[in-house]
Amino acid sequence: MSLVRVHNFSISLDGYGTGEGQSLESPFGHAADRLHRWFFGTRTFRRMQGREGGGTGVDDAMARTWADGIGAEIMGRNKFGPQRGPWQDEDWKGWWGSNPPFHTPVFVLTHHPRPSVEMEGGTVFHFIDATPEEALRQAREAAGGKDVRIGGGPRTVRAFLEADLIDHLHVVVVPIVLGRGESLWAGLEGLEERFDSEAVAGPSGVTHLTFTRRGTA
Amino acid sequence: MSLVRVHNFSISLDGYGTGEGQSLESPFGHAADRLHRWFFGTRTFRRMQGREGGGTGVDDAMARTWADGIGAEIMGRNKFGPQRGPWQDEDWKGWWGSNPPFHTPVFVLTHHPRPSVEMEGGTVFHFIDATPEEALRQAREAAGGKDVRIGGGPRTVRAFLEADLIDHLHVVVVPIVLGRGESLWAGLEGLEERFDSEAVAGPSGVTHLTFTRRGTA
Repeated sequence: MSLVRVHNFSISLDGYGTGEGQSLESPFGHAADRLHRWFFGTRTFRRMQGREGGGTGVDDAMARTWADGIGAEIMGRNKFGPQRGPWQDEDWKGWWGSNPPFHTPVFVLTHHPRPSVEMEGGTVFHFIDATPEEALRQAREAAGGKDVRIGGGPRTVRAFLEADLIDHLHVVVVPIVLGRGESLWAGLEGLEERFDSEAVAGPSGVTHLTFTRRGTA
Repeated sequence: MSLVRVHNFSISLDGYGTGEGQSLESPFGHAADRLHRWFFGTRTFRRMQGREGGGTGVDDAMARTWADGIGAEIMGRNKFGPQRGPWQDEDWKGWWGSNPPFHTPVFVLTHHPRPSVEMEGGTVFHFIDATPEEALRQAREAAGGKDVRIGGGPRTVRAFLEADLIDHLHVVVVPIVLGRGESLWAGLEGLEERFDSEAVAGPSGVTHLTFTRRGTA
């Protein structure tokens, strides 16, 4: 069965998955890198960058499950880049350089479709104007029976949770108070009723929460 | 040194320390008992009720530190009871029966002072209209050199955090999304800069976060 999964989704104590004031210089706004420092220390992250070393404890173990069995990703346009509205610059190909870490088809949700972009290493960006259900249908087809990852940002994850399309949700609670930004939890009252949850703290100070849809475990 | 401490303060994933619609029948509003179920299973809670049994794992270890070394409590009026505005019913003596679990002076913050109420077992409720700083001055005097506990609710804890008067903060994050209620974190952006923090998950599914003011450890 092809599952829909969210991994390594970092939020602050007050539930924000990104800060305010996102821009080319500050992809996470005033949150800067504070939501993701736990990840930079992991072996998984180092490998993505072609580097050695990094921790191999619980933070790494949780981070590592990110790519396993994934056949496609769906992401919001704000994760893909800082532009809003009609595309001013079609040369923009994401934050990740010529060989992005996805290595699968990636469906970017946008009200402004544009031609697909093929990158090195198997990543192909498709730009679609679609509901969560329709985006998932296309991603599943492209994934060839494998799982689909919902890559964020917060608004995109929230939309898929609202539509009850997520089977596995891994949230990393970072012990900071951002005060403002984009909330993961807004509008999701009672979410826990659809999931079994588990919590484990890492020595980096973050807490890994996993939500597994009841009936899929 | 007399410290100011918060213990066993439960919040939802979205940061609410109480639900919406608090009343005599529902002291925590629509949250009902969901924020405190982890506590009911502990030996500490059973003992408070004069009962035996209960778990003795990490949830209990964290809960148990609640009373140790405390000489006075400060609480908001909404923790004391469901009445708002001028007191209609001075016979109301709190939710806790004739022998409340505090066993110390308790300062209830209210814009409507009333005569103090002496209970069995050493608890005396004082009703004062005071700033956090002034309330703490009175509580410290009554505590005779011991620590002062800030007992909640969320608005009261927040006011003391805003005034930077808290030395030790123990928050219990419960894996539920309440969606609405009284937020603990609102207005506290950057709180973590003043504290060292630690996280540990309990088998009940909650995460215990402790914040220790830098310089007091």
